[in-house]
Amino acid sequence: MSPREAQALDLFVPLDRSRRGVGRQIEGQLREAIRGGALVSGSKLPSTRALAEELAVSRGVVVRAYAQLAAEGYLDLRQGANPAVRAVAPSAPAPSPAAADAAPVKVRHDLRPHLPEVGMFPRTAWLRSLRSALATATDGDLGYVDRRGLPQLRGEVAAYLGRARGVVARPDDILITAGSTHSLSLIARALARSGARAIGFENPSHWLLHTVADRAGLQPVGVPVDRHGLVVDELEDAEVGAVVVSPAHQFPTGRALSPERRAALVRWARASGALIVEDEYDAEFRYDRAPIRALHGLSSEHVAYIGSTSKTVAPGIRLGWAVLPAALAEAVAEELWSTMLHIPGIDQLAFGDFIRRGEFDRHLRRMRKIYRGRRDALVAAVERRLPRLAVRGIAAGLHVLLELPRGSSEESICREARSRGLLIESLSQHALPGYSGPQGLLIGYGAILEPAIAEAVEELARAVASAG
Amino acid sequence: MSPREAQALDLFVPLDRSRRGVGRQIEGQLREAIRGGALVSGSKLPSTRALAEELAVSRGVVVRAYAQLAAEGYLDLRQGANPAVRAVAPSAPAPSPAAADAAPVKVRHDLRPHLPEVGMFPRTAWLRSLRSALATATDGDLGYVDRRGLPQLRGEVAAYLGRARGVVARPDDILITAGSTHSLSLIARALARSGARAIGFENPSHWLLHTVADRAGLQPVGVPVDRHGLVVDELEDAEVGAVVVSPAHQFPTGRALSPERRAALVRWARASGALIVEDEYDAEFRYDRAPIRALHGLSSEHVAYIGSTSKTVAPGIRLGWAVLPAALAEAVAEELWSTMLHIPGIDQLAFGDFIRRGEFDRHLRRMRKIYRGRRDALVAAVERRLPRLAVRGIAAGLHVLLELPRGSSEESICREARSRGLLIESLSQHALPGYSGPQGLLIGYGAILEPAIAEAVEELARAVASAG
Repeated sequence: MSPREAQALDLFVPLDRSRRGVGRQIEGQLREAIRGGALVSGSKLPSTRALAEELAVSRGVVVRAYAQLAAEGYLDLRQGANPAVRAVAPSAPAPSPAAADAAPVKVRHDLRPHLPEVGMFPRTAWLRSLRSALATATDGDLGYVDRRGLPQLRGEVAAYLGRARGVVARPDDILITAGSTHSLSLIARALARSGARAIGFENPSHWLLHTVADRAGLQPVGVPVDRHGLVVDELEDAEVGAVVVSPAHQFPTGRALSPERRAALVRWARASGALIVEDEYDAEFRYDRAPIRALHGLSSEHVAYIGSTSKTVAPGIRLGWAVLPAALAEAVAEELWSTMLHIPGIDQLAFGDFIRRGEFDRHLRRMRKIYRGRRDALVAAVERRLPRLAVRGIAAGLHVLLELPRGSSEESICREARSRGLLIESLSQHALPGYSGPQGLLIGYGAILEPAIAEAVEELARAVASAG
Repeated sequence: MSPREAQALDLFVPLDRSRRGVGRQIEGQLREAIRGGALVSGSKLPSTRALAEELAVSRGVVVRAYAQLAAEGYLDLRQGANPAVRAVAPSAPAPSPAAADAAPVKVRHDLRPHLPEVGMFPRTAWLRSLRSALATATDGDLGYVDRRGLPQLRGEVAAYLGRARGVVARPDDILITAGSTHSLSLIARALARSGARAIGFENPSHWLLHTVADRAGLQPVGVPVDRHGLVVDELEDAEVGAVVVSPAHQFPTGRALSPERRAALVRWARASGALIVEDEYDAEFRYDRAPIRALHGLSSEHVAYIGSTSKTVAPGIRLGWAVLPAALAEAVAEELWSTMLHIPGIDQLAFGDFIRRGEFDRHLRRMRKIYRGRRDALVAAVERRLPRLAVRGIAAGLHVLLELPRGSSEESICREARSRGLLIESLSQHALPGYSGPQGLLIGYGAILEPAIAEAVEELARAVASAG
């Protein structure tokens, strides 16, 4: 292939050979395509030789057509380069709705509770794993692969979950997904297809998960949370066949499920044949002593354990896993297959390599130190500047809960904060109907650099004061 | 970070400090984890120093625990390396169901109609684009991104569709998905949510798409296909508000929708306010003259245009797009968001770079030549060895249809072929209820090397003869 041919681009020029004037047809179609916006400014056209060959016309025909379009100002012709479309586009694209949604106030500190630090994404190590993936992939790995995920990655995830989270899983129990949200969506759809109508959630818990369940066809039912975690006794009244919990670090209260409640929850699942969906969305980030074993270990037949790389590595790689009870595994895999067939094979190989090289563990350790530093700075700043607010849920995760005294208004504080360029969330945003606990602010430290924390809390204190 | 620390792995060892014998606890927990399979053979443990630091115990405690486990045969201790778990796993994992499904006969030629050539996947160029993606990604690109896809990629796809397929789309009309199946699944779910109950399909058309629609809550209704393509008049009787078509190259008959039918189809959609889902699953591979313009150009308000890289690059990258009518765009994007949030950002950046560098067009041209050579070899071999079978749908795509004479049995030919190590599909496999057309064999040439084609057809001819 000549260098010139290698530069050629695919171009859509349908010719009607029963009509005369093939050159005029080429010219007219290109003009129309440029005017109509099909060929946008900057697009490269094939060389005259390549297009002539493609359309089986003489080269002179294409040369003349291009020259005419250049004379009319539609094309840039330069020696040795492919012809390029000039900027004559009739109209600029409309601004994207996302841009329109953006807050009008400049964001100074993003303290939303669910954001990890993507600035520390290990780009070099990840590229090395991608290179290794592409170097070692079989042809089969690049094609349509096992809907459950590549066996290599499921093996690595099984080994990781075993050593780091105490979850005993065979590779065949694991489904590779695009993250925790995706896993919950697939599990909820499988439950709905088998006749379920509702699913329990800790109240409060992340609003996104309620939405995902609702759209999967299951009504989210709030179950109260107290200082021991989910009030298991209330599950009976909720009349649900499944419940989503975060035993290690409840979102947003930050509490851990007490040992008694853990045992009671498993008893409930066994007695009623129900499913516990254990969402370990941030269990890897635990800063103080006493790691908490995954509930999965108590009853793998009644627990679907879901985890993700969104908090630990970056949301942009979209990889997660579900460890599924045998009775549910096939139905959940079927939900994934019948929507998107499978998760990208190359990404799976890369993440498998990333774990195998020890990069995943190394990144976790590095981030745990950084987050612990931020957490400490945040807690210290709050104690200094907002001493009246109780700080909860500091042992793990990427956020803390600031409990507000009675009579405070979450809403007006969040509004004040927003007007000062602070993005925060309130506890009520995550409440389901029936919530009667305290009000509070959720302050994330995943996406703020440690040196900026004091100033952000300073500003937050002013917002709290202004809101009265 | 010291090299040794960099090697350390995350390990789950919850200690009860209220009890005595912390060293015994460590030892016991590791033993249990190895015996129970949580720590699999070959797993590396943290160095004594790292684990001691992590657990806040003296290093001697860990040294003694490791030594005891090594004495019992559970660990390998080597100077300068991390301790490793020895092969004492209690039971091997069960064989995967996928492996059990595999045909007992050795596959000699895989002639299934939907397989592209992944052996030509441009690994080097793709890696270059991944490298560029990681070098240029903003932190935002690595986080949670626009559910519709990154604007950079939507811009590149819009420009590509404009110049190569005559599809005029603004980046804001485009949704990035995991491929055509995913796009159809999301569109079908959005239609079902808005109250639709059924969706029309060409009869026959790919069975996978029927399944996807069915699982999305829409009953697939077959609409006949004749030599001009979809019989548009029959759409009225089908009582559907949407129909899926492949106007450029109908699967599996290989026919193109005639100009009259194209016009009639658009009239039907306009008159009834219906949606046409235009599936251009392989439109890029057109070997003879006269490219066919996408239907989308006739009525962008009534056409959802879907395309994918699965056939053009490789299924393993799982990237596709849907160009959506404004009225539907938000609802379809919402379906994607509420299941998996968005498509991986890094993959999106890489594919955008891949198009921008001209690699996508270059790969298409290269593959078009290769597939054209295989197509020619296949058609020649069939004419030579199976002259009684009419060859249909040769102008495009990755397969041909061999029409069987009356009285032949698709089923027995496919069974014979399978026993000889040939994987082929039959036309009836893709039929919906009501199909009354001819029988036929679908012979794919996407995944067979050109020199092997003559032998494969030789074998196929024997299978046809044996089946009587």
